[in-house]
Amino acid sequence: MATKEEIIEFLAREFPQSKCLVEQVGNGSATVVHHVGTDHLRPGNTVSGPLLMTVADVALYVAILGAIGIVPLTVTASLTINFLRKPSPNNPITGVCKLIKVGRTLAVGEVSLYSDRDEAMVAHAVGTYSIPTRRS
Amino acid sequence: MATKEEIIEFLAREFPQSKCLVEQVGNGSATVVHHVGTDHLRPGNTVSGPLLMTVADVALYVAILGAIGIVPLTVTASLTINFLRKPSPNNPITGVCKLIKVGRTLAVGEVSLYSDRDEAMVAHAVGTYSIPTRRS
Amino acid sequence: MATKEEIIEFLAREFPQSKCLVEQVGNGSATVVHHVGTDHLRPGNTVSGPLLMTVADVALYVAILGAIGIVPLTVTASLTINFLRKPSPNNPITGVCKLIKVGRTLAVGEVSLYSDRDEAMVAHAVGTYSIPTRRS
Amino acid sequence: MATKEEIIEFLAREFPQSKCLVEQVGNGSATVVHHVGTDHLRPGNTVSGPLLMTVADVALYVAILGAIGIVPLTVTASLTINFLRKPSPNNPITGVCKLIKVGRTLAVGEVSLYSDRDEAMVAHAVGTYSIPTRRS
Repeated sequence: MATKEEIIEFLAREFPQSKCLVEQVGNGSATVVHHVGTDHLRPGNTVSGPLLMTVADVALYVAILGAIGIVPLTVTASLTINFLRKPSPNNPITGVCKLIKVGRTLAVGEVSLYSDRDEAMVAHAVGTYSIPTRRS
Repeated sequence: MATKEEIIEFLAREFPQSKCLVEQVGNGSATVVHHVGTDHLRPGNTVSGPLLMTVADVALYVAILGAIGIVPLTVTASLTINFLRKPSPNNPITGVCKLIKVGRTLAVGEVSLYSDRDEAMVAHAVGTYSIPTRRS
Repeated sequence: MATKEEIIEFLAREFPQSKCLVEQVGNGSATVVHHVGTDHLRPGNTVSGPLLMTVADVALYVAILGAIGIVPLTVTASLTINFLRKPSPNNPITGVCKLIKVGRTLAVGEVSLYSDRDEAMVAHAVGTYSIPTRRS
Repeated sequence: MATKEEIIEFLAREFPQSKCLVEQVGNGSATVVHHVGTDHLRPGNTVSGPLLMTVADVALYVAILGAIGIVPLTVTASLTINFLRKPSPNNPITGVCKLIKVGRTLAVGEVSLYSDRDEAMVAHAVGTYSIPTRRS
């Protein structure tokens, strides 16, 4: 297990380019927030799909590190995302991950993505991460 | 239908931040290339998952615009990606899209992603795009 | 909207071969149960993947009919399922669907699949259904 | 590696209820065919989604057994299917699998599903199978 502070310190060191803020982690869940800038918009005055995928991926990674500890080589094995509603260009994107399974070599979780957190989710993702087996 | 030149001009105008180069488009297919910089790396000296998802998404978008013409509000409805092998940090990522269906309101395609183009694909994606119905 | 009784009567008439029992429907959710017979087992003394996919698909269909009424030509557009744990051959499979979006032409939901309902889910699915537009 | 005859004999013994015929297997691919009976139809006079998922799953299983040999406990880890066109109730369903990766613990393949083989595919699937590690 890793604490929120340990994960924030790890991400700042290993992913200095990441603009995702870790808001909560623990109990098989995580919440991360990504600001939306003009770089992330697309025609229709909405947020690009790849930004939503990025937030989903980071939310999963953070939730899994929270559950298994800092295992940097844990990598995404698959991700499925469904886009449901048009996010506002004026809100950050929030990703809320709940882990479904944390096995020895595979972790699975789902992520609800929000634009306005008081409204319905804008996208939903399910992802699997491969956990390297620690050989002794 | 849109030509490669029309799509390149459209992307430069509407997605100026995009770093994906359009190499080929037409006949229900497209090839796009994205350079890999230090911003796109992750622990393990490999390429981040979100960059691969971005290339898959752009390859689909370009192939669809090639097939239906410049319809900017065509948006990703879903994407599923499987990560298969570790990309080299030294190669750009190439995405090769083949459309499976181009319907009136939905287009579906698959994307093979390569690091070294002479070797096996590093990831595989299937995506669906929603095409706005043009009301008259 | 359709009631549980209306859906049971519809399924019995249109899908007489279906062995899924509708246990609950309403409020954007549904619970269905499928018995497990020797026909549904596979090597490893566990339940076959296709049976789990069938239960996921039916749970989505029932939840959607509950939300939009009996629209028989509502059809699956996509389904993604992750298999998480080995179901027991001695328990029926229960599928619990929660709808994420019910739009005019598309409905999306997720399904948790259980063998022993008191234990962790054995599989998780996300599906989209296409709703025919009712032209007048 | 397993031959077509070995796989047919294995399926007949372990999945006697299966109605999928193995038409071709080898070179990282497989073709299987499933007849369509009244049990497999649904409103709209078309083939039910679960039958298409079943054929996709079997095509993957057969292609993988062809590549790695008869390893019965190889099990589906995930499957994503997109339904593209309405199959005819009068044709069998053909599934053509091409493997994308055969690793030590995971195999990935895609499946094109056909109603009339001379026409466009009716559905497309991507699946992953987990291969048990053979401990010595």
